[in-house]
Parts: sequence; C-alpha cells; structure tokens
Amino acid sequence: MKIESLNNSNVKRWKNLLEKKYREQEGLFLIEGDHLLKEALNLGLVKEIMANEEDFEVPGIPFYLVSDAILKKLSNQVSGTKVMAVVRKMEEKEIRGKVCVLDNIQDPGNLGAIIRSAVAFGIDTIVMSKDTVDLYNDKVIRASEGMIFHLNYYRGDLDEAFLKLKEMEYKIYGTNVKRGVNLKEIKFDCKSAIIIGNEGKGMREEYQKYCDSLINILISDKCESLNASVAASIIFYEMSDNNEF
Amino acid sequence: MKIESLNNSNVKRWKNLLEKKYREQEGLFLIEGDHLLKEALNLGLVKEIMANEEDFEVPGIPFYLVSDAILKKLSNQVSGTKVMAVVRKMEEKEIRGKVCVLDNIQDPGNLGAIIRSAVAFGIDTIVMSKDTVDLYNDKVIRASEGMIFHLNYYRGDLDEAFLKLKEMEYKIYGTNVKRGVNLKEIKFDCKSAIIIGNEGKGMREEYQKYCDSLINILISDKCESLNASVAASIIFYEMSDNNEF
Repeated sequence: MKIESLNNSNVKRWKNLLEKKYREQEGLFLIEGDHLLKEALNLGLVKEIMANEEDFEVPGIPFYLVSDAILKKLSNQVSGTKVMAVVRKMEEKEIRGKVCVLDNIQDPGNLGAIIRSAVAFGIDTIVMSKDTVDLYNDKVIRASEGMIFHLNYYRGDLDEAFLKLKEMEYKIYGTNVKRGVNLKEIKFDCKSAIIIGNEGKGMREEYQKYCDSLINILISDKCESLNASVAASIIFYEMSDNNEF
Repeated sequence: MKIESLNNSNVKRWKNLLEKKYREQEGLFLIEGDHLLKEALNLGLVKEIMANEEDFEVPGIPFYLVSDAILKKLSNQVSGTKVMAVVRKMEEKEIRGKVCVLDNIQDPGNLGAIIRSAVAFGIDTIVMSKDTVDLYNDKVIRASEGMIFHLNYYRGDLDEAFLKLKEMEYKIYGTNVKRGVNLKEIKFDCKSAIIIGNEGKGMREEYQKYCDSLINILISDKCESLNASVAASIIFYEMSDNNEF
C-alpha cells in the first residue's frame, strides 16, 4: 500500500534524518536518485528504500511505496526524485593514500565540491575537523554529484590526526594566502597531506607547527583569496599524477 | 527622515531591481556592503545610496536613510547589511587581454566563482552567451566576493564574438571532458581565449569549429566531470604567469 500521509510514522522518522542530531543518533542518512542507490547497494549500506514505483524494489531490503509529495518533502529539492534510501554511514576508516585535511569548512557546497574534485584527482582520504560541516548533510551530498562513496573519511581531533600522519611519515602541507612556497614549484610524493582552512579565516595558526611546508597559490593582489573548494581543487590537480588515470 | 515602510515607493522601486526584467529595463542593479560601494564610487557608477546610518552619505549622491528591515528585504541575506546602493551597469567594453568565454553557464554561484578566480589569475575579459545567467543577479555578486568591478564584460551572440576573436588573432581553446590536449601540456600565450560550457551539457558542439584546440583536464574515470567553476579556475591557474603578480 502506498504511503500518502506526511504524518505517517515512517515519514516522520525519515524526515528526522534531515537533521544532523538524528543522523548522529541513528548512524543513518538519506540519499536520493538511482545512481547513489546503486553505489550504496554495492557497498551493502542500504537499510530501507522508498520510491514512487515498485521497480525500485530490491530483494532483502525493506521497501516502501510512497507518494511524490513525500519524496519531495524528504529530498528538499524543487524538482523531486523517484527514489530515496536510508543508508548506514560509512565506517570511519584508516588514513591511507593521498590525504586532504579540512579545518573547519563550513559551507556544504564547498565540502561537496571538494569531495567531487578529490575523487576526480585521486585523493584517497578526507580528514575532517569535528567542527567541519556534516558530511551527511543533503546539500553536501548534492554538491558532491554522487561522489561521496568513493572516498575514505576520518572525522576527529585534528591534533591527533596530525600526530598519526607524522607517525606514518606523511609530508604535511599547510595553505596560506599570504606566504609559503609557490604551488607550481612543489613536487608532491604519494605520502602527502594538504590542509584546507576555513572559508573566512583560513587554516588555524596552531596547526602550522605540524606543517613541513606552507603552500601558496600566487594570485593577483586585487583578490584577497580563492574560494576554498577552488583552492583545494587546484592543489589536487597539481598533486595528481597524469599516469594514474 | 528614515524610511520605515516596505510600501514606500522608493522601496518598491529598489525591490524591482531584484528581478532581471527590471534590471534590464533600467540598466541598474543593486550592490551591498561598503567594500563594493567604495569600488562603485571609484568608477562613478553609483546612482543612489541607502543605509541605516548617515555616515554613509556621499556628497552629490542621493541618500536615503532606511530601516534595517528594508535593507534585509533588499539584500536577500539572512544577516543583513548596513549599506546598499543602486548602481549603473558597467559599460560593455571591447574584448582585450586574456579572455574567458562562457557558453550558457546557469548557476549564479558558478558565475560568481568564475569571476572571483578570473580576477585572481589575471583574466581580463569575460564573454557571456546571451543565455548565461545575469551578471547582475545578487547571488552572482555575492559569490564573486566583490570582484565584479575588476573585469571587462561582453554579452552577446557567441558566433559574432568568436569571429571577432579570430579577427584579433586570438587562439581559441574549447574544453571537453572526454578528449583534447592534456591541459598540463598547453603553453598559453597572451592572446588566448578559453571556452567554459554549460554545467550539464558542456560546450555547444557547434562552437568546436572556432577552436584551435580542445583542452582536456585528466580526471579519474570514477568521476564524470569537474564543477564548471573548478574547471575554469584550474585553466585560469595554468594560464597565469607567475611573474605577473
């Protein structure tokens, strides 16, 4: 039977997952669209599927037929979607490969764009400070263009993360809008970690002590700084080895 | 006397400028914040100033003291602003210097980010197809972080623009997500024009005939494409000559 009422208890439960508090409490989040559904299914992370057609039913996974109005309510999108799913959060994994450390990134669009570019240029792990915007925010997922499942994530205390990186013999690169080594002159090796700082304030100064070097992207003095996701993407581009792809 | 009513005829007139139709009819647009006001004043473009304090008054320019509620209504921002201004659109100027051609960019955040990166990396002229999002949209201005006054703009028929560029002996570079010359291998000279295509569809194929070469940014096959403003920024970065800054 199709669920039509916005007051249905399942709908209420799903709607809660639009809030960070409930996502953290349950360890679950929402995704939309068949592209992301397929990826989450491959990783065995899907807990429930809700769709406006029975075609989306998958053996062994609880399925709910719901109205378009409900999907629209849950997806927060103007255009709506045909299928959504409740998905278990990805496990926090070990740090490995090329690393990007995010120090208090606040804009969900920026985090999503950083994830998209990170996948594009072969970054493996994203380390996030505790105060970075929630990875499972619907705007982050949307801006990542479906790339969220292709990376390793670690969220926690950055001092601990930096000590771990040091132990693993990573070279740590801070970023600074005023000074540092010109990005074009840096040769990255495979154990590199770069730090991208907050949109307004940049990287916290206390983290400079962990840096082997500061990176500077040379820009015109007419412009104060680059957008955080643009700066990250340009550095990822320089870190990428063309032979990889 | 302070204007307090949202029904005041001036307020209505200013509110109209939030719509493209009226901006085109009047040749005017709105800006907010003292940074942009200062730049617009330097260029002699300011027609009226409205602020919540008399400190913002400038000799020779009509000034309106208005309530915070009015500024909030006009600025479309959660946090509000202290000063706004009605500004004359910048003249459409000649094409010169390094050029970026935008083919049907739709997202105001992307256009703003492209403008910010263009100024950062020394691009001089932005050529926009007629169907590219309006430059004077408040979201574009916000995302540009106050950089809109530092570029030359040309909006019009792209076929005409390409013929003009050819006549001026520009080298025209298209962009393509699947093929073309690896960006890292291209040596740009000062008469270069690059084309950035629509977010979903890329550059219109009919424009390939004007291209001397197609640029390809090598990315992982896990990722379909880069965000349009990220792709533009990476190309601007490669076009920039470090000795300029």
